[in-house]
This record gives sequence, structure tokens and C-alpha cells, in this order.
Amino acid sequence: MSWIDDVKWDERGLVPAIAQDALTGRVLMVAWMDREALERTAATGEAHYYSRSRERLWRKGEESGHIQRVREIRMDCDSDVVLLEVEQAGGIACHTGRPSCFFQKLDDGRWVTVEAVAKDPKEIYRTLDQERDAPLSTPQTREPGE
Amino acid sequence: MSWIDDVKWDERGLVPAIAQDALTGRVLMVAWMDREALERTAATGEAHYYSRSRERLWRKGEESGHIQRVREIRMDCDSDVVLLEVEQAGGIACHTGRPSCFFQKLDDGRWVTVEAVAKDPKEIYRTLDQERDAPLSTPQTREPGE
Repeated sequence: MSWIDDVKWDERGLVPAIAQDALTGRVLMVAWMDREALERTAATGEAHYYSRSRERLWRKGEESGHIQRVREIRMDCDSDVVLLEVEQAGGIACHTGRPSCFFQKLDDGRWVTVEAVAKDPKEIYRTLDQERDAPLSTPQTREPGE
Repeated sequence: MSWIDDVKWDERGLVPAIAQDALTGRVLMVAWMDREALERTAATGEAHYYSRSRERLWRKGEESGHIQRVREIRMDCDSDVVLLEVEQAGGIACHTGRPSCFFQKLDDGRWVTVEAVAKDPKEIYRTLDQERDAPLSTPQTREPGE
């Protein structure tokens, strides 16, 4: 029985994974992991997730360069949520170019964006998109955090 | 169109909700919310969740007394995860009597409990169980954090 079998995977074989900034303590993003994503995260020390939309393993930062070096992997009391303590490359976790994905704040009955874009997503993803000889991807089609 | 409609509820009508300690920055727990739980959380300033096992609304601390006063409600970039900044009553979020539910750490291929129990769960839940004239509940049957 391996440590990976202690995780209570849901009916899809996934668990939510939270990435928290080791320096600031900020919650950066939440994505999903399957067994392979968690095993690779543990083996490589770099955060890997499972993309539900693309239905494949996804190394955080593989397109953006905003990789996450993992300092610590934790699991909750009922073993169905993973918490990563990470060093966030570039200080940007979100595909919108913001440090954290949690930039919408409920204020007086509406969601307000309370955090500025640190880097234009067009800049972040430009190189790859040019290599592909494809039009710039819209951030909306990407996973949170990618 | 209300702010609650901006949330992207999953096929079960739920989203994951993270509670983060406003003082320490620690991630305390993750539970699920339905529309009613989020609306009540916003309206009352106390964290409410949806219990999947009990299939009902659940006010955090209703049994343990370990309520969560909500300072801020945030949502992520694709609007399917909620983040609460909370003041944790009693300094204990976990049903095991620990400050945080994330007390299992991956260490050299196994999960190690790295945090001591601050208060015996039997103490936490004693009053209620006596009132019910029922045997002490086993913590394993409770929701994470309750």
C-alpha cells in the first residue's frame, strides 16, 4: 500500500489541490489532480495537475513558464484534498497575469476585481503562440492558473 | 442577475470552499457550498457549508462551537472556487481537534501527522452528545472541519 493509495480519489479519480505561496501565505489557485499528477508532483518537486478540459496531465507553467516549486505536500483529515506549499515562479499563478487566481472579492452584493494584472497574458503566452503560428489564445480557454 | 448567479456551480450545484485563517494565513479546511450555504454565509457573516454526507446545510461550529466569522469572501478566476478569510473560534477548525485539517504531511513516501491535537474531540462534542443521550460520535463520521 503506497502513500498514493491513502488519497481518497473521487468518482472521477480526482482530488482538488490548493497551491499556497510559501512566502506570502496567499492561496494562489485551486486545480485538480489525478494519481499521475500527484505522483509526478512528489517525484519532480514541481506542481502537476490534471486538466479536466484538456483531459490530460498538465505541468503548471508548461506554457507560461510560471512553474511552482513544491516545498511541502499536505493532505486534509479525510484525505480528499491536497495542499501544496509552493514557490511561485514569476510571482504569477493566474492565467490572467495576476499573482493569485482569487482576485474577485464580494463587496456589497457584487464581485469586484481587487487585484491588478501584473503582466499582460498576451506577453505571458506570446512566445508559445507565435511558435504555434496560431492566433493568440484567449485566457478564458485556459485552466485556472495556467 | 445576482452575484450568486456569477458562481459556476458544478453539476451537483456545489463549489469547493476554502477557509483560510485571517490571522495566521493557514489554510484551515475545505468543504462544499451550495447556493444556500454561500448566501447564508454572506448574509450572516458566519461560514455555512453543504454537507454531502448529511445532505443538508451545515453551519460551521453548530456542534463544536468552533464557528468561523467571515471577514472576506473571494472567488477564483473561473468562478468555481470560493475562498473565505475567517476568524476561527477556539483556534480549532478540524473535527479531530487540531487547528487545521491539513495535518498530514508527505514525508519520505508516507503521510505523517505533523500537528498535535489541541483539544480532545470527545471534549469538543461531549455536551451535544450528552444532550442527545447518544453514544459519543466518532470523529470519522463527521464532515471535515465540523
